[in-house]
Amino acid sequence: MREWRLRAIAEFLGGETKGDSERVLSGTCAIEAPEPDKVAFIESKRQIAGLTGEAVGAVIVPQDLERHFENAVIHESPRLAFAWAQVAFYAPEGFELPDRAMLDDARAFPFTGGEWRISSGIHPLASVCEDASVAQDAEVGAFSFVEAGAEIGGGTVVYPSVYIGRDSKIGKDCRIFSNVSVYAGIEIGDRVIIHSGTVIGSDGYGFVSHSGGHTKLPQTGRVVIEDDVEIGAGCTIDRAALTETVIEKGAKLDNLIQVAHGVRIGQGTLVAAQAGISGGTRIGKWCVIGGQAGFQGHITVGDRSVVGAQSGVIGSILDNSKVSGFPARPHSQSMRSLAALSRLPEHLWEIKHLRQRLAELEKKMASLTDAEHASRESSTGDGE
Amino acid sequence: MREWRLRAIAEFLGGETKGDSERVLSGTCAIEAPEPDKVAFIESKRQIAGLTGEAVGAVIVPQDLERHFENAVIHESPRLAFAWAQVAFYAPEGFELPDRAMLDDARAFPFTGGEWRISSGIHPLASVCEDASVAQDAEVGAFSFVEAGAEIGGGTVVYPSVYIGRDSKIGKDCRIFSNVSVYAGIEIGDRVIIHSGTVIGSDGYGFVSHSGGHTKLPQTGRVVIEDDVEIGAGCTIDRAALTETVIEKGAKLDNLIQVAHGVRIGQGTLVAAQAGISGGTRIGKWCVIGGQAGFQGHITVGDRSVVGAQSGVIGSILDNSKVSGFPARPHSQSMRSLAALSRLPEHLWEIKHLRQRLAELEKKMASLTDAEHASRESSTGDGE
Amino acid sequence: MREWRLRAIAEFLGGETKGDSERVLSGTCAIEAPEPDKVAFIESKRQIAGLTGEAVGAVIVPQDLERHFENAVIHESPRLAFAWAQVAFYAPEGFELPDRAMLDDARAFPFTGGEWRISSGIHPLASVCEDASVAQDAEVGAFSFVEAGAEIGGGTVVYPSVYIGRDSKIGKDCRIFSNVSVYAGIEIGDRVIIHSGTVIGSDGYGFVSHSGGHTKLPQTGRVVIEDDVEIGAGCTIDRAALTETVIEKGAKLDNLIQVAHGVRIGQGTLVAAQAGISGGTRIGKWCVIGGQAGFQGHITVGDRSVVGAQSGVIGSILDNSKVSGFPARPHSQSMRSLAALSRLPEHLWEIKHLRQRLAELEKKMASLTDAEHASRESSTGDGE
Repeated sequence: MREWRLRAIAEFLGGETKGDSERVLSGTCAIEAPEPDKVAFIESKRQIAGLTGEAVGAVIVPQDLERHFENAVIHESPRLAFAWAQVAFYAPEGFELPDRAMLDDARAFPFTGGEWRISSGIHPLASVCEDASVAQDAEVGAFSFVEAGAEIGGGTVVYPSVYIGRDSKIGKDCRIFSNVSVYAGIEIGDRVIIHSGTVIGSDGYGFVSHSGGHTKLPQTGRVVIEDDVEIGAGCTIDRAALTETVIEKGAKLDNLIQVAHGVRIGQGTLVAAQAGISGGTRIGKWCVIGGQAGFQGHITVGDRSVVGAQSGVIGSILDNSKVSGFPARPHSQSMRSLAALSRLPEHLWEIKHLRQRLAELEKKMASLTDAEHASRESSTGDGE
Repeated sequence: MREWRLRAIAEFLGGETKGDSERVLSGTCAIEAPEPDKVAFIESKRQIAGLTGEAVGAVIVPQDLERHFENAVIHESPRLAFAWAQVAFYAPEGFELPDRAMLDDARAFPFTGGEWRISSGIHPLASVCEDASVAQDAEVGAFSFVEAGAEIGGGTVVYPSVYIGRDSKIGKDCRIFSNVSVYAGIEIGDRVIIHSGTVIGSDGYGFVSHSGGHTKLPQTGRVVIEDDVEIGAGCTIDRAALTETVIEKGAKLDNLIQVAHGVRIGQGTLVAAQAGISGGTRIGKWCVIGGQAGFQGHITVGDRSVVGAQSGVIGSILDNSKVSGFPARPHSQSMRSLAALSRLPEHLWEIKHLRQRLAELEKKMASLTDAEHASRESSTGDGE
Repeated sequence: MREWRLRAIAEFLGGETKGDSERVLSGTCAIEAPEPDKVAFIESKRQIAGLTGEAVGAVIVPQDLERHFENAVIHESPRLAFAWAQVAFYAPEGFELPDRAMLDDARAFPFTGGEWRISSGIHPLASVCEDASVAQDAEVGAFSFVEAGAEIGGGTVVYPSVYIGRDSKIGKDCRIFSNVSVYAGIEIGDRVIIHSGTVIGSDGYGFVSHSGGHTKLPQTGRVVIEDDVEIGAGCTIDRAALTETVIEKGAKLDNLIQVAHGVRIGQGTLVAAQAGISGGTRIGKWCVIGGQAGFQGHITVGDRSVVGAQSGVIGSILDNSKVSGFPARPHSQSMRSLAALSRLPEHLWEIKHLRQRLAELEKKMASLTDAEHASRESSTGDGE
């Protein structure tokens, strides 16, 4: 952890200082749990209403709210600036801080918070096959195994107990956490973060069923993970049957996500935990996929689509769609159906009631009609 | 495995002997698959109806059912006593049996059944960093790596291929199974069991999205796992962004569960497999969460709540709630809605039918009204 | 990768050559991405309509479609033949190709596509306990640990960082990928493939709840995985409390699947990703289970049943059932209910409308009845 004076951190964040510019700050905190030597951030007026008045070291705050705070960094994007502050305070001493351009265009700076290492080469208890290539300033942890033909780029840290398969390539400045498995022939870009327990390149689920059983279709395709992707813990990304499974640049996956063979996840798309995407499906760019959502195979989800948590998407959807439910339909329709469903028991009651009233009415009508007939007959009789 | 005479096991379990008290028993069995030298348990009359009459060594049985069995341990809590019997028969020889008080108050006795070890120190193929601290009677398995500053308490067994990150603390009498990853700065209490493949302390899913993409918010918080917690295989417990993710004392998690950053799971709460809890959500104490249930972020689930399997909880719920469905509503309401939904097609048919009958009636009404008007006019005419 | 002349591959596949029988082929491709030196397959007329006319080396094709292609292998089961072609081209040089009988009856040939190894014994950095037994032509990778009493059969490859617990038995020609955990006392058959991160034999989720908390029921049962089973990445297969969890011969599990204690999955059953099966439930033979489906505990799913993705099966179902939805009901009923649900908002609107029309009609009826009464009274009066 580093210490920063208020004016220095304001300068690093590209904001304006207010108050005691020489004040020393030693970390970050949430505004809900303020600490007197730490910096928090505020985005909206609403948050200010909830403050307890306890002292906070300083606040990153937009122009229109600065009057509420004594010591502040005035910044037009407080949340983004706070992300940079996390880096500024907590990135380890040996690291050079990234220039802001890097943060602005969302290149993944390889300090995750969860852990970090100063690169120190190949651990004596790691095993790197003879014709594998590890960059001089990369690190390979104890009990990690790098197969023949594999390549690991500069600045990349491979934690302990990682397996890197034959001919797999990992770019620069990546973080591959402990107990990750990367099968053979996988391609991973720069600044990619892969959390523990995740598996990249396991066989796709492909069998040919016949009277004798299910014959395995060997899965000879591969996986490509582009730059700046982050993949959470415990995910499984299968290799394609023949071609490629692709996670495009800057996509971010949460934990325990299933990506089947031949899937493509578009640039910048966010996928929440425990979602599952079946084989051959293409998720567009800049989509937001909710937790535990499921996708049928061989469909296309348009760019910038939003898919609700626990949805079941069983057909292709256009760009800019917003869907939810099972089967997934436009979100507003799903909401209306669910609202209707919640009122359904009383409506069924009403249908029953309507039926009774209708029967009652029909009875009355019948007797009226009889009466009317009778009277018509009698008046007819009269007329005769 | 040990052998016990009937009177000895009855004494250990705190029950009363019936029948041949010197009978030798060599293990446990299910009453549905009785074995002549093993002990089973019976809780209810209903179970007795299903018995085949095959010989069983002895039965742990409540007072009111003992007459059905020749050799028995009479006990007021047969199922609980059976759990102790499992320990008594199968805990490895070197282990001292726990005193019953420990079992009564549900402290986790570190014999899991799945595996056990007699502590034998640090395996020569383990790697423990110089300033890490491992208690003398703890065990660290081959190919496990203990980072600088980490601490491992007495009686704890760390299986092979486990990673313990920098400054993480693991209490006494824990079992950390193979291929578990514990990131840096995690705190784990006493008698905690963590099954294989589980990841504790991976980064929370936190990004600041802007025109350039998604900038990572480094996750500098931590995870606290309190005493007597058990976490199943393949779970992912993310570290908090700034503060703590907490699993309180005695909570039990099944397999493949996602716990996001900043979540708190209350004391004694049970969470079934594949449930997912989004960031910042608090689950109360002594709750029961069904399998594959999902929770929105930043909500509160009251103490002693019961959440049905596959539910989607999208808002806070009070203490003692019982909810199910998507979106989760009081269980009885959800059940009524689902029942109504299953009858919906026939009701829609009926609505159509009602519509036709109503139209018919309206037509008749119109003709009747015409007739009535006509007759009124005619009678009016008559009267003029 | 190997090269094959057209006539040789046709012979291996048991098909008939058409065209240039000496043509050299160097791999396989998808017909949608044809390559001039590779072989693809076609099953249906529909696929031919979509062809771009780009050159492909050869096509495996049924008799009735051969006229569309210059160079072909004519085969009655093109997809199955293609699976064999994958083996023929990509299995590593050192491997003897399987005879077709093996492929026909779906014995799992131990070439997965994702990775392969030529068996080379126990890696110097592996650790095999003294009284464990590893067959001479088996391989144990670096940093893998084989406990006392364990057995590993001939032709089996254990990748790096695998843990094999005490007394566990693994058959012949298996592939156990990196970071797999096999607890103690597990039995695994021949030609079984287990992908990375999967856990076999973790404790079932069994507790006895009482006023003091939840006392663990030690799980002393085991897991049996029969021949020709494939289990994907990141799955968790719990050991039984007392007896056995069983995956029967030739069943194929996708990724991230939860199999609880005491479950039995029948022969040849297919289970898609992220499905979860609760304790004691029996899934029949030759079933197809959709992704993210969930099963209540202690129920029976009949043979050859089909369960839709995301279904929640809460009761036993008969052989040959086809169910979906929550709670799972016959698929056609679920579909009708969902269709009805999607139209529900408009129907509720109609009910409201019917109610208004009915009220209107009732008013009219009342006034008509009054009028009729009045007229009857007046005519009665008249008659008096």
